[in-house]
Amino acid sequence: MSSESAQNDYKPNKIYDVVIIGGGPAGLSAAIYASRSMLNTLVIDKNPNAGALALAHKIENYPGIPSAIPGIELLSILRKQAESFGTRIIKGMASGVNFEIEPKEIYTNEDTYSAKTVIIATGSMGRKPSIPGEEQFRGLGVSYCATCDAAFYKNQDVASAGELPDIIEEIDLIAKFARKVYIITRNKSLKQEEAEIFKRHPHIEVKLGCSVKEIRGSENVSSLVVADASGKEETLPARGVFIYLRGSQPVVDFLYGALKMEDGCILLNSKDMSTSVKGVFAIGDVTCRKIRQVVVSASEGCIAALSAEQFINRRERARSQWSAV
Amino acid sequence: MSSESAQNDYKPNKIYDVVIIGGGPAGLSAAIYASRSMLNTLVIDKNPNAGALALAHKIENYPGIPSAIPGIELLSILRKQAESFGTRIIKGMASGVNFEIEPKEIYTNEDTYSAKTVIIATGSMGRKPSIPGEEQFRGLGVSYCATCDAAFYKNQDVASAGELPDIIEEIDLIAKFARKVYIITRNKSLKQEEAEIFKRHPHIEVKLGCSVKEIRGSENVSSLVVADASGKEETLPARGVFIYLRGSQPVVDFLYGALKMEDGCILLNSKDMSTSVKGVFAIGDVTCRKIRQVVVSASEGCIAALSAEQFINRRERARSQWSAV
Repeated sequence: MSSESAQNDYKPNKIYDVVIIGGGPAGLSAAIYASRSMLNTLVIDKNPNAGALALAHKIENYPGIPSAIPGIELLSILRKQAESFGTRIIKGMASGVNFEIEPKEIYTNEDTYSAKTVIIATGSMGRKPSIPGEEQFRGLGVSYCATCDAAFYKNQDVASAGELPDIIEEIDLIAKFARKVYIITRNKSLKQEEAEIFKRHPHIEVKLGCSVKEIRGSENVSSLVVADASGKEETLPARGVFIYLRGSQPVVDFLYGALKMEDGCILLNSKDMSTSVKGVFAIGDVTCRKIRQVVVSASEGCIAALSAEQFINRRERARSQWSAV
Repeated sequence: MSSESAQNDYKPNKIYDVVIIGGGPAGLSAAIYASRSMLNTLVIDKNPNAGALALAHKIENYPGIPSAIPGIELLSILRKQAESFGTRIIKGMASGVNFEIEPKEIYTNEDTYSAKTVIIATGSMGRKPSIPGEEQFRGLGVSYCATCDAAFYKNQDVASAGELPDIIEEIDLIAKFARKVYIITRNKSLKQEEAEIFKRHPHIEVKLGCSVKEIRGSENVSSLVVADASGKEETLPARGVFIYLRGSQPVVDFLYGALKMEDGCILLNSKDMSTSVKGVFAIGDVTCRKIRQVVVSASEGCIAALSAEQFINRRERARSQWSAV
């Protein structure tokens, strides 16, 4: 996982221009722009096979890929691109930071890294798979994002589990593709508005007061077991199941309050992706924005890298000016 | 240029879900997300060989492309991707709009198009090439963006023409790669701060009170002719010349005041890319944002398409509710 680039060889006391925590599409895009701008760039990546994109079975809507590819393949392209410009990628998990000193420090269990600027791109952690079969069929019928995956279920039977009205917009999209949509919800009744929508779509069937007990299949999902409040079970045919049970949480535990937060999310200026600490930026799913698309994360990576570059140059310009006075 | 998709065949009175004006990376990315969400999508493109990306000789920093490709090739991938999801692309130039009626109307010299939502992605128009040789060597040594192209001039002689301090950040980046940087500026003197910066970089040479008279070369740029205020000419060796003479203008003439503007730019909510008219969005270089990177435009296209989809769905939900009362 280490870079071939000689200029980036690790020295114990090396000060990086940019340390990026997180090797998903946001972090790697930041690395591409930072290292191509000749900034000495390190990416600390917990696990190249984890994260939302790595788990995406297929991605076909990222602008610029000629045909559908596994998420992990797109990640691998991004990694090679960043390394080709000189980025060093190491495997490690950030366990703490110190943003009150210059250079800033980032700690892993093994090492300490020093940086002029830091870009946080640790993503968000979904709830742990809790339904029997959920983990096994993730990417093989189990999905968490209609914008990402609904199009793969054209003319097929699918189910969507979650609370109304939260999942209405997701169902809107799923219902455009699927032949049949089962909505499995703990809600006991429908609101007038919801009832109207579903009435217009005879291929939507709502299972009120129900929950998913098991997801079944062989290679891919083929059915799910649903139980009502009394425990009575029923098996529904489904090639896909979209699960919306509790939102995911941004991975910010290693910050221990080093950045200002609001409702569990890093306080952010979305124009330049800067945080409450100068020279520290945050991008990607860790930012709590609503749209979860790879291209939006990549764009934020680009913006943060250019902001980091300006921050470093401005500071160095200011220094040279002061030292001359 | 028309789509193969049968579902999108043109009918005179057809109402599109989304009409996108402009076929650059912003517009095509919007088309990818809109048509993949089963929205009936039309792109009106003036010329597939014009626009900032089409003119980019090489692009290597767009996240997800494994190696440098001509801008026009990336555009072609984006076009095919959009068409594969059902987008119809026509060649045409928007000459007017009517956003006061529903559906909204977009006029070209040949036709009228009706749309529930409109996405403006017409980009910006640079100044017309005015220096002899500028047009001939565009993409062959003539560049307008250091973030895009500075890395291509490692250890070479380059020049940058424009006004200080506007171009300081661009020069910062160019100077990291180039062996020698000539700054050709009409400025008559340097400020203290500027002088300090250049003093630190002996490979920067400033030509005060000068302008570029001609760009010369055979295949690529090899030199430029520079004149001082008295008209005295000098030839400088240079493989690249970065030109920053007057900013570019967003292409908004066809709107004739249909959207609220501020300082010549469309007034915008950057969270969902919405404009002052409901159901009308604006993305890409037409928005006057400072960073000009393809991935940022593509991200805005994604966001606008998802916003358009939500706008349409919400309206249709509201309608069905009202009609039931």
